[in-house]
Formats: sequence, C-alpha cells, structure tokens
Amino acid sequence: MKLSNKFSRRDFIRTGSIGLGALAMAPALKSFARPKKKKLGIALVGLGSYSTGQLGPALRHTKECYLAGIVTGTPSKAVAWSKKYNIPKKNIYNYQNFDEIAKNPDIDIIYVVLPVFMHKEYTIKAAQAGKHVICEKPMALNAGECEEMIAACKKANRLLSIGYRLHFEPHNMEVMRLGQKHILGNIKHIDTGNGFTYNGDPNAWRLKKALAGGGGLMDMGVYCIQGARYTIGEEPVAVKATQEKLRPDFFKEVDETVFWELEFPNKLVTTGKSSYNNDWSYLKAEAENGNFELGPAYGYNAIDGSINGSPMKFPQIIQQAAQMDDFAKCVTLNKQSRVAGEEGLKDMKVVDAIYRSLESGKWERIG
Amino acid sequence: MKLSNKFSRRDFIRTGSIGLGALAMAPALKSFARPKKKKLGIALVGLGSYSTGQLGPALRHTKECYLAGIVTGTPSKAVAWSKKYNIPKKNIYNYQNFDEIAKNPDIDIIYVVLPVFMHKEYTIKAAQAGKHVICEKPMALNAGECEEMIAACKKANRLLSIGYRLHFEPHNMEVMRLGQKHILGNIKHIDTGNGFTYNGDPNAWRLKKALAGGGGLMDMGVYCIQGARYTIGEEPVAVKATQEKLRPDFFKEVDETVFWELEFPNKLVTTGKSSYNNDWSYLKAEAENGNFELGPAYGYNAIDGSINGSPMKFPQIIQQAAQMDDFAKCVTLNKQSRVAGEEGLKDMKVVDAIYRSLESGKWERIG
Repeated sequence: MKLSNKFSRRDFIRTGSIGLGALAMAPALKSFARPKKKKLGIALVGLGSYSTGQLGPALRHTKECYLAGIVTGTPSKAVAWSKKYNIPKKNIYNYQNFDEIAKNPDIDIIYVVLPVFMHKEYTIKAAQAGKHVICEKPMALNAGECEEMIAACKKANRLLSIGYRLHFEPHNMEVMRLGQKHILGNIKHIDTGNGFTYNGDPNAWRLKKALAGGGGLMDMGVYCIQGARYTIGEEPVAVKATQEKLRPDFFKEVDETVFWELEFPNKLVTTGKSSYNNDWSYLKAEAENGNFELGPAYGYNAIDGSINGSPMKFPQIIQQAAQMDDFAKCVTLNKQSRVAGEEGLKDMKVVDAIYRSLESGKWERIG
Repeated sequence: MKLSNKFSRRDFIRTGSIGLGALAMAPALKSFARPKKKKLGIALVGLGSYSTGQLGPALRHTKECYLAGIVTGTPSKAVAWSKKYNIPKKNIYNYQNFDEIAKNPDIDIIYVVLPVFMHKEYTIKAAQAGKHVICEKPMALNAGECEEMIAACKKANRLLSIGYRLHFEPHNMEVMRLGQKHILGNIKHIDTGNGFTYNGDPNAWRLKKALAGGGGLMDMGVYCIQGARYTIGEEPVAVKATQEKLRPDFFKEVDETVFWELEFPNKLVTTGKSSYNNDWSYLKAEAENGNFELGPAYGYNAIDGSINGSPMKFPQIIQQAAQMDDFAKCVTLNKQSRVAGEEGLKDMKVVDAIYRSLESGKWERIG
C-alpha cells in the first residue's frame, strides 16, 4: 500500500482499512488526514419539472457530489442548463448518443428522472455504461421490470438506488424509529394518504397509461406504501383496493383516487389512499402506548409531525441533497444504499397487487 | 406530355399549363379532371404547447395537408404523438437525425415550431433537405437572421412562409380591406396592444434572452406591428419606444412591457404596446370617415370587431388550419405565400429598431 499526498480519502475509504503501522506515522500524514476530496459527478437524465425545480437546485447544496452532466432531447434546455449550471458541452448528451457517456470520466452517477416507461431502459443502459444509478420513483411500470433492473445493475456490478428522499428527512426518520423500535409499543393501526388536485396539462405523460403505468397510485400512493412499510418495518402480505373517478374525462387512462387496506404480519391492517383529485399528505400511527403522526408528511418541504400531540422539533432539510449525498457516499464506500433497487421492487409488488385487486374486487396476495 | 390516370392534379398544376389539344380531349379526361387529390405531408418540428394545443389539433381539420411526421427530442412525446395522431415510426425524427428527413417522400412541408433561437438553423436545414418551410413567429432573433433564412430557401428553391395565422382570419382580413382600400377614407390613427400576464414556468425559454431574443415585444408585439402594417398597407419608416418593468425578478433577461410610436409615410404615427404583464388584445383604427376596431384582435379564437360601433359578423375559424391549407396550396401551385419570409423580415426590422430606440431613447429609422 503506497502512501503519498496523492492518496485520496476516497482511495482510503475504498481500500477499507489501514494498518496500525500507517496510523503510527500520523505526524507525517497531516495532509493525508484531510486531503482535498473529489466530489462525484452526477448526470441528470431528463430535465422535466422535478429536475428543474428540485434536483438541479439541490445539487447546489450537495457536498459529496455535483451536477456534472445532463441528458436531454430538448436543445433549448441544453443551452439553458449549460449556462445556469456551468456544464461543459462535452458533458451534455441526448437520447441518441446516451451510450457514449460510458467514456466520460466526469460522470460517476446517472440519475434517471424520465417518464416511468423509460426507467427500465435507461437504468439498464446507465449500468451497462459503467455508471452507478439513481432511478426516480415509481421505480418502473411493474415489479417484473424492477427485477430486470436490479439484475442488470448487479451483473454490471453497479449500485442502484431509488429516489426515496424521505428516508433522509428527519420527521420521517423519527417515524421509522418510533415504529420500528416500538418506542410507544407495537403499532396497532396506520392510516395514510397522499394526493394533490391535478389541473395541469391534459397531454402530460403522467396521464397516459403507457407512459406512466398508472395515475395517482403510481405517483402519489407509493409514498403511502413506503410510509406504512417503514413505520412498521415489516413487509405486507395482502391488499384489497377500491377506486373512485370523479373526472373521467381528464383521467381517461389512469387511476384518479384509490383506497386500500394493506395487511401486515400479525393481522395488522393499515389503510391508505392516493389521489390526483384530493390534497392529502399525512400518516397517522396508533401504537399500544400512544400515537404519532406526520402532516404534511410527504412533500418537498414543510414536513411536520407530532408525538402524543406534542410537535416534533426537527429542521427542514433539502431532502434531495441529503439523498444524493448519501448515495455518493455509498458509491465511495461501495455499499448498498438504504433505498436500493430492492426497496423499489417491494413497493411495486404492492402496487401490482392493488391493481389486481381493483380488477378482481378481492383481497390479493402481494408478491 | 404524357397523359394517363397516374397524371395527378398536382403534376398538372406543377406543369403549369396544358395544351389546347389536350383540352379538346375532355371527354376522355373525366378521371383526369377530378383525380383523387393527395394531401401534402407536414412535419412539425418541436412539440411544445403551440404544436400540442394548436397545430396538432388544427391538422385534424386541414384539407390540403395532414400531419405526416414529427421531430422531437423527447421520447415520451414521440410515443404519445405517434399514438394520438397515428404517425408511423419512420416519420418520427429527432434533432440528431433531422437531416435524414430529406429522404422521406411523405414529408412535403416542415413547420418549425421551436424556440426562436433555433428558427434560423432549422429553417435552413429544412430547405436544404428539400422541404418547403413554415417558420413560427417571431421569425428569428433579428432581421439579419431573417435575411439568411430567405436567401437559403431561395437558393434551395423552396417556399418559405411565416406562421402569421391572422392573415387568414375573417375579422383581421376585414380590417385589411377597410384600411388598405380606404373604405372609410385614409387612416388617421391606429392604436393597438397585445399582451398577457405571464405567470408560468420561470425556467421557460421565453424568459431567456439567448433563446427567445426578447420578451413581450418579440412574442406579443409582433402582432401589433403586423396589425398596423396590414391595416395601413404601407411600411413604417421610424419608431420611438419606451418600456416599463414592474416584475424585474421574473423578467430578468427580457422586456416586460414596451410602448412605441411607429411612423408611417405621410406623417401618420400609430401607437402600439406589448406586454408580458398586461392582458391586451385590440386594434383601434380611426379613419377620415369613421372608425373600426378589433377586440379581442389577436387570439386563437373569439376574435371580434366593429365598424362605426356596429359589430362585424364573421365566423370564427380554425386559423391555423386555414393558414396551413393556404401554404399547401401555394406549394402545389408553386407560388409565394401571402405571408412569405419577407413579411417576417419586415416585422423584425421594426422590432430591431424598437430595441435600438429603447437603448438610445431616440427615434430610430427602420431598416
């Protein structure tokens, strides 16, 4: 093991251990102890509203990674982003030359922020290009696609993570602690809902089944499935769902509002609902010795919560910055993210079962 | 000249004349006289809101042309449009393989519906690909670019038209007739304004100077310059302009509201104004023996007007369908459109002079 000023912290961490002999050299290693850290380069694929409004701005606040490149089919976006974020031309790709990104050493991580139907294709392409991948939620059109994505990343020996930002958000993390560690005893019930009143462009991809996979359930409901799962810390076994459609002309192809009961082990049944036609964002948990809740629970900011009626006192953070920094650390340490592809797969199995239940009108087993 | 059933009306018209000997054969030519007419194929380049909300739907109502192809960098739009308008895969292009459109016989006309900074490049590419071109307004970033576009189309022997739909709108056509034919005597004054309160995406290309060329003047003011020019039927010689900016944080790079005086020959001075922060759409003309006005004057529908206070009674039409059908006829007849590239150039010379006047604070000569 060669030690020199060029030996970076990243190399150090990757090596994983350092002999006691080296540690004994401490005085000579002052510059080694705090070397200049290289931030990992992220490329955003797809410059829609989430990239524009959330990820781009968040990448101004990351410490472990930075916005190194973009992939867009829209020339005007290429010009605007290049100028705004000082991205060199050589790091700007489109959907035709995407695979050439393999040759670009500036890009360590590819973040897939595309319509759902493209998640599988570009996650696999990214891994095959030798890059680590973050894929936005919902992970894919169905659980089968998720499995292909996980297998492809494994085969390419690349890490895969899903854009589950709330695993890094203090109020949601508190809920995980309260539930999973039985702080107020076992969970007796959870009710959670997430939705907004969709009045946007009727031509948006989110309203097309072939492009989005589904409607409010895919987009908003996944948060509730996550919420129930990470509060309880176990995997659900069955689900029964119903739906309501008040604006069939607008939601021609996709679900509007969906209600479900989700059964966990030990006969614990939680309720959840998702909507493109109601403004919901809450999680209420009842435990043996008290209760806790979040509201707003799932938004990009202004998350709030309480325990037995007393407000939680956590800071608001830039969730996406925390999420991307965590994944950059995982890449540096070569360890699985807490929101790896398997986490997305578990949610998609629930989503698939909910759609089956909407068809059958019956309880459906998950998985 | 070979006459057969395969001799189409289009070939006939292109040939331009037919000998008397052939006409004498009339009885044998029944199938020749009214052959099945081939609609010309249009490809839309750029699938933003104008293509999505106006041109695509209008192309369901055209008689001389149809939506044969699309050019988009956004894969989800390619899928959605292909499905919605039944466009075959071979007629879907992106910005990387655009030039291959030259080989596609389905495409006769290319309609450039891109951000302004791309108008010149894609108009020239389209003409060089052997296609006739419609370019959206404003024609380009400045008059110099317009001249290059006109020259390139001339060199390629292709027709060029600007998307000036109001030349085909009955109320606006009535105003042209009233003014240009001096129906109420000579015009003594015109006042016209066009604008809307822009509250959309702050990242939109329309707010970036490099992409849009300017703000409300380029986008909305061009209608007023058109309105004054086509009511009077002469070309303005000088202009003086001032501006107002009430939302500098939003309109960081481009003009918000611009006011101008536009001098025509014989000392006729008209007033105009454009805005991204006021809802205007009117043209008021005072003539020697009466007055007439339009309001709304410039929108996509619900145009209204009056002459000496009596309402005009014209139908509302699908302006873009009429405009595209007219250009398709021009292509078939190989004649210049009434809204040829030169018409766009004239407006851009006025726009350029307005921007010069905003700089200098003085009257500026046009051209």
